Amino acid sequence: MANRRVYLDYNATTPLSNEVKSQMIADLEIYGNASSMHEDGRNARVRIEEARHNVAALIGANANNIVWTSGGSESNNTVFASMRELAAKDGRNEFITTTIEHPCVLNSAAHLKSLGYKVHFIGVDSNGKLDMDAFKAALSERVLLVSVMMANNELGVIEDIAEISKLAKNAGALVHSDAVQAAGKIQVDVNKLGVDYLTLSCHKIYGPKGVGALYHKNKAPLLPLIHGGHQEDGIRAGTYNNLGILGFGKAAELALKGLEEYQTKLRALRQRLCDGITSKIPNIKINGHTKDVLPNTLNVSFPGAEGEAILLSLDLEGIAVSTGSACASGSLDPSHVLMAIGVGPELAHSSIRFSMGLGTTELDIDYVLEKLPPIIARLRAMSSVTGK
Amino acid sequence: MANRRVYLDYNATTPLSNEVKSQMIADLEIYGNASSMHEDGRNARVRIEEARHNVAALIGANANNIVWTSGGSESNNTVFASMRELAAKDGRNEFITTTIEHPCVLNSAAHLKSLGYKVHFIGVDSNGKLDMDAFKAALSERVLLVSVMMANNELGVIEDIAEISKLAKNAGALVHSDAVQAAGKIQVDVNKLGVDYLTLSCHKIYGPKGVGALYHKNKAPLLPLIHGGHQEDGIRAGTYNNLGILGFGKAAELALKGLEEYQTKLRALRQRLCDGITSKIPNIKINGHTKDVLPNTLNVSFPGAEGEAILLSLDLEGIAVSTGSACASGSLDPSHVLMAIGVGPELAHSSIRFSMGLGTTELDIDYVLEKLPPIIARLRAMSSVTGK
Repeated sequence: MANRRVYLDYNATTPLSNEVKSQMIADLEIYGNASSMHEDGRNARVRIEEARHNVAALIGANANNIVWTSGGSESNNTVFASMRELAAKDGRNEFITTTIEHPCVLNSAAHLKSLGYKVHFIGVDSNGKLDMDAFKAALSERVLLVSVMMANNELGVIEDIAEISKLAKNAGALVHSDAVQAAGKIQVDVNKLGVDYLTLSCHKIYGPKGVGALYHKNKAPLLPLIHGGHQEDGIRAGTYNNLGILGFGKAAELALKGLEEYQTKLRALRQRLCDGITSKIPNIKINGHTKDVLPNTLNVSFPGAEGEAILLSLDLEGIAVSTGSACASGSLDPSHVLMAIGVGPELAHSSIRFSMGLGTTELDIDYVLEKLPPIIARLRAMSSVTGK
Repeated sequence: MANRRVYLDYNATTPLSNEVKSQMIADLEIYGNASSMHEDGRNARVRIEEARHNVAALIGANANNIVWTSGGSESNNTVFASMRELAAKDGRNEFITTTIEHPCVLNSAAHLKSLGYKVHFIGVDSNGKLDMDAFKAALSERVLLVSVMMANNELGVIEDIAEISKLAKNAGALVHSDAVQAAGKIQVDVNKLGVDYLTLSCHKIYGPKGVGALYHKNKAPLLPLIHGGHQEDGIRAGTYNNLGILGFGKAAELALKGLEEYQTKLRALRQRLCDGITSKIPNIKINGHTKDVLPNTLNVSFPGAEGEAILLSLDLEGIAVSTGSACASGSLDPSHVLMAIGVGPELAHSSIRFSMGLGTTELDIDYVLEKLPPIIARLRAMSSVTGK
């Protein structure tokens, strides 16, 4: 095994920041059930409401518009499940989303489709930006919800949510955005975006896994996915996940405070990696928009080398990357996101997502730039021999 | 504020055991996304599968029949949501549950009812045991699911799940049991119980909040409540909650190992509290079955004293108890469980649940027995003056 570990899979998940870790160790003692009336319960409740303020602040929202969930997948599913109940009573029964969403949105939308609702899956251009003409053509007064992710997990491409919201609102639709990959990396302001619902996850911003949040605008309809106790005004039942929620609050506070510094640092690291790969490895393709992109994400195709083989070869050198979404790993299908931008199955199968983070250093990038070129050369030589 | 804190609300939630706490502090470093292919991902995955074995062992199950969830409420909701999808295709469209279930089962069942399905809410006798005649009368080949909790959260009464399963199976129904309050307190063996589904929660057995599990028998149909990634064979999407799951594994291991000792210790403490209250306070009523009851739970009515006032008075003395389920606190309605055993609204409003745990000592019980009698006397005197 390699001595050096370089983790470049921050879009899959992040380690805990030291500040979050320290706070969580102290908060292992906050065990009261926040729904209990006694002191132990009240102590937990006060802290949970502080965390709610911090998470709300990260997206320019009010605390009372934040619902805790178990993560981004649950948040997204809650919106779609609400729409299912609503559509049964509402005249509107069409939905719009995109072909590059995270599996939890795609499969929630597919579930609605299987129930007989009409779902428009709008494509993107070769840079990964939403096909606005197709989007406008699909919009009508029959559309109940438009759901477009703010930043794509595989490409890092940032969509124009404010513009999409405006168009959707004019058509009378509700608007949801999955901002799991955007929050903590670029500015996310629900008022500027004009969305009704926005999804957040804690473990992408150096906090613990198993906790997320759903922003919902005042009066935007929201129904429980998980029925039960009176928690979260009856919208989300279940005993509060004290430790996760308090970790989320701290992570959100740090993400907001450090946003500018994060962007400066990560943009420089991304550029260093991009320049290095471009100069050291012939015949590569950078995927996704060059400007409207997250500061930390670089998706590259290496024609003639197989993505999974690159991943495993880098792993042997102590470098962690991914071929796409962790939630889709294990699948033999090419990335639906790369297919959507038209790179074709062969190129899609030869692509690597590098996603950097706060722990990444220039030395890490240089280490990757030392190890990657010979790996690509070797794999290309092998595939030219086997004719694959 | 009181110097001494005596926590007697273990049925609402438990503190972390020292062993779980120590392991969790170490496991704060296990940050890989368990779906990732690289070393960081694999390390997390191996540990998560170890935890799955430990949780399965607690209920005599195989690890591959355990699905991770965010808690008991999600586990219960997953079963009911699966039944909703199934009932749409199945000839069977009736459901059986009880009037004393946790709100997450009651409200899941009520949701099915609101969608047009027939739900039989079977009552209990004055001891809290299921009305078997009514249950048998409701059973038919139209029943898709029977859901009966193993041990009641407010009374501690243990239901005869094995017998209920046998009858349900004979009628061709699927069987679910919410064992959140039973696991770690009494023996829970899915094979002896004969259930198709069983719900577990981690934070009731000295592990972290925000994580639960659902046992499902081979071939028992189960559909995703949370659609998305391929995790858990597509039954439950979302990035694995490493820290919570690993904590659950440790908590389950300890619960199984310590079960006998737990029962001996808690039975003695419950008896001490019960005897003390009976001898020191006149005109009280112990609620629920005297023998088929959890070793740690004592539910007592104090006629003439208001439950919430007792709770708050005890809290000022540093003693944490509850008037019923934490998930129902804040509600002005009398406990649905106490109403179901026929105690009437006035007595229901004068009841306290004492739930003890591993951290409880004889001195704690004696402290309660010192503080409680004058509180009851004072509140009774007040209510006789005000005529309330």
